[in-house]
Amino acid sequence: MATLGLIEYADASPEVREVYDDIMATRKTDWINNFWKALASDPSTLRRTWKSIKEIMAPGALEALTKEMLYVAVSVSNQCGYCIASHTAAARKAGMTDAMFAELMAVVGMANETNRLASGYQVEIDERFR
Amino acid sequence: MATLGLIEYADASPEVREVYDDIMATRKTDWINNFWKALASDPSTLRRTWKSIKEIMAPGALEALTKEMLYVAVSVSNQCGYCIASHTAAARKAGMTDAMFAELMAVVGMANETNRLASGYQVEIDERFR
Amino acid sequence: MATLGLIEYADASPEVREVYDDIMATRKTDWINNFWKALASDPSTLRRTWKSIKEIMAPGALEALTKEMLYVAVSVSNQCGYCIASHTAAARKAGMTDAMFAELMAVVGMANETNRLASGYQVEIDERFR
Amino acid sequence: MATLGLIEYADASPEVREVYDDIMATRKTDWINNFWKALASDPSTLRRTWKSIKEIMAPGALEALTKEMLYVAVSVSNQCGYCIASHTAAARKAGMTDAMFAELMAVVGMANETNRLASGYQVEIDERFR
Amino acid sequence: MATLGLIEYADASPEVREVYDDIMATRKTDWINNFWKALASDPSTLRRTWKSIKEIMAPGALEALTKEMLYVAVSVSNQCGYCIASHTAAARKAGMTDAMFAELMAVVGMANETNRLASGYQVEIDERFR
Amino acid sequence: MATLGLIEYADASPEVREVYDDIMATRKTDWINNFWKALASDPSTLRRTWKSIKEIMAPGALEALTKEMLYVAVSVSNQCGYCIASHTAAARKAGMTDAMFAELMAVVGMANETNRLASGYQVEIDERFR
Repeated sequence: MATLGLIEYADASPEVREVYDDIMATRKTDWINNFWKALASDPSTLRRTWKSIKEIMAPGALEALTKEMLYVAVSVSNQCGYCIASHTAAARKAGMTDAMFAELMAVVGMANETNRLASGYQVEIDERFR
Repeated sequence: MATLGLIEYADASPEVREVYDDIMATRKTDWINNFWKALASDPSTLRRTWKSIKEIMAPGALEALTKEMLYVAVSVSNQCGYCIASHTAAARKAGMTDAMFAELMAVVGMANETNRLASGYQVEIDERFR
Repeated sequence: MATLGLIEYADASPEVREVYDDIMATRKTDWINNFWKALASDPSTLRRTWKSIKEIMAPGALEALTKEMLYVAVSVSNQCGYCIASHTAAARKAGMTDAMFAELMAVVGMANETNRLASGYQVEIDERFR
Repeated sequence: MATLGLIEYADASPEVREVYDDIMATRKTDWINNFWKALASDPSTLRRTWKSIKEIMAPGALEALTKEMLYVAVSVSNQCGYCIASHTAAARKAGMTDAMFAELMAVVGMANETNRLASGYQVEIDERFR
Repeated sequence: MATLGLIEYADASPEVREVYDDIMATRKTDWINNFWKALASDPSTLRRTWKSIKEIMAPGALEALTKEMLYVAVSVSNQCGYCIASHTAAARKAGMTDAMFAELMAVVGMANETNRLASGYQVEIDERFR
Repeated sequence: MATLGLIEYADASPEVREVYDDIMATRKTDWINNFWKALASDPSTLRRTWKSIKEIMAPGALEALTKEMLYVAVSVSNQCGYCIASHTAAARKAGMTDAMFAELMAVVGMANETNRLASGYQVEIDERFR
């Protein structure tokens, strides 16, 4: 169970509802996932986190789908179960196909492997990369 | 210094040179970076790793640039200095602009933050994400 | 299920019971949590781990509550579900309020973010910090 | 070398200078460390990150020193060299003595050990912790 | 539930069945665990991963049991629940006794502790180790 | 530079010298590496850590060499530069050949890859592994 509980819309303060409303409007959805309901116990973290996510995940030099896949890549490397589930869902909604997911996983797996080969063999950084 | 040393092209066995040649041809470059020179002490790992990388990083459902940025995202999450340096260079070569790099970093940073918020608040996975 | 099973007090050897008794006396509690029951299959690890924990977590230059919060910070960064649950409970028992927990999470999240920004941007350590 | 370079005060845009000025004023210091100079290539990340750090690290339910030690705990667990150096310096400035640092390290080391013992023994979360 | 589902032998393509058959023959077993059934949605990753595992885990300079224990050590450090469960089972099948498991855990726990002590104290690498 | 400095034998207290002497006697060597000199600023952590290491790393159900290789596997997964350097040296001293090192790296790399494939594909643990 979430440490400080989950705050439903009906029980939320106006300050929290405002964030919930913006999440739903921005994501064009009619529900709030548990992550936000858990953060809602600390309205300042809720607001700051949502504001940052909204700003960062908006399309810019990178597309929204690319950003969602990057989010999955990090979450998988960190073994965060909640984040893998939620951001895989978000990436699918943003257009990630099964084939794209499979390639994403292949890259993430390979990167985790070669990260350790590079460190384990104590490879020095090439001058050209500095 | 690399644990088993670095094997230069001039000193490499035909088996290793074959891999080096394929790396240079595939990447349209005339040099081999230290990672491969370090792995060359174990030709079977050199060959298997290169073969996997070549297959995985080729454009498919995802573009080569997207794949390189995913590689950077994982390497940064894992704090692998060599890999951050080499794959940032590779991503730039594949077309990553400064603006794209900056957005990539913003997403990676944010994902690492919310991964811990989700775990720390012990958030249960929503039914809709299962 | 715990790999080597859980050893209950009633089934424990005198050597294990001695540790269990000390845990309960030190913590002013009447039960043993699963972590210790799992380690009990290896009495030497049980004894060494408890002895170290007891020594390290006792108030000293840092208060017991601060130490418990540090424990939570590490467990969250490492995504250890068991440890997050047990040490959050321990920190609450030691006096952590909801407001303190919320600030703890905010710091842990932020630190995980800036750790990756620092590495990803390949920031050199300032001379003044050396 | 930092991926996008380091932006010195003299070369900074008014937008970046404003953040630099606030960092120096808030921290009562007359210099900017490399982390911020590296982020300055992306003014929106610079501003957002500083704003979050300023808000999160201010004394509240937890003291500033406790927060700095939590930051060190996370950075050490993640093996971020830059962050360990900079936040250890910050914690010292906030009043961390050698004895406090030593206890901090002991807790961080122990937590990293028991995190793996808990996972490795596949210990189930006790009902009382849920 | 696995993101792309689990492919049972009865529903598998000839290409996937060929891998499944080789897994069962190599491991002298009559079933396929979920990991492979999940990867089967991407036959090229299934094939490449199995081929690499088969090559790497075969006895060579290191015994099969040692390799399985190394696999457990990494999985525990990374907190991968599935991998801890499956490779602990594999190590037991390869001959790991309870006493060996207990020592394995003790080493993994200790290594995770001293890894952080070394980083946290910012210890420089001795000349003799370079 | 090590945060609290390095304490040389000549400058050490009798309590620290006693640990140094035991390290050198146990390891049949005539020098102390930086890790211990850094911990020496906190004699209780120095003593406790050495005592634990000595107990854990002694041959038992597992050979000393196997234990050293497990230590390297963990250190590489955690990307701890100091630990990789020192424990690779220790493993070599304990008899690890180049071929054994190469296989060790191959296993560690592969385990890090499949750890993420298992998590990324959200694979459920098989009933048989529970």
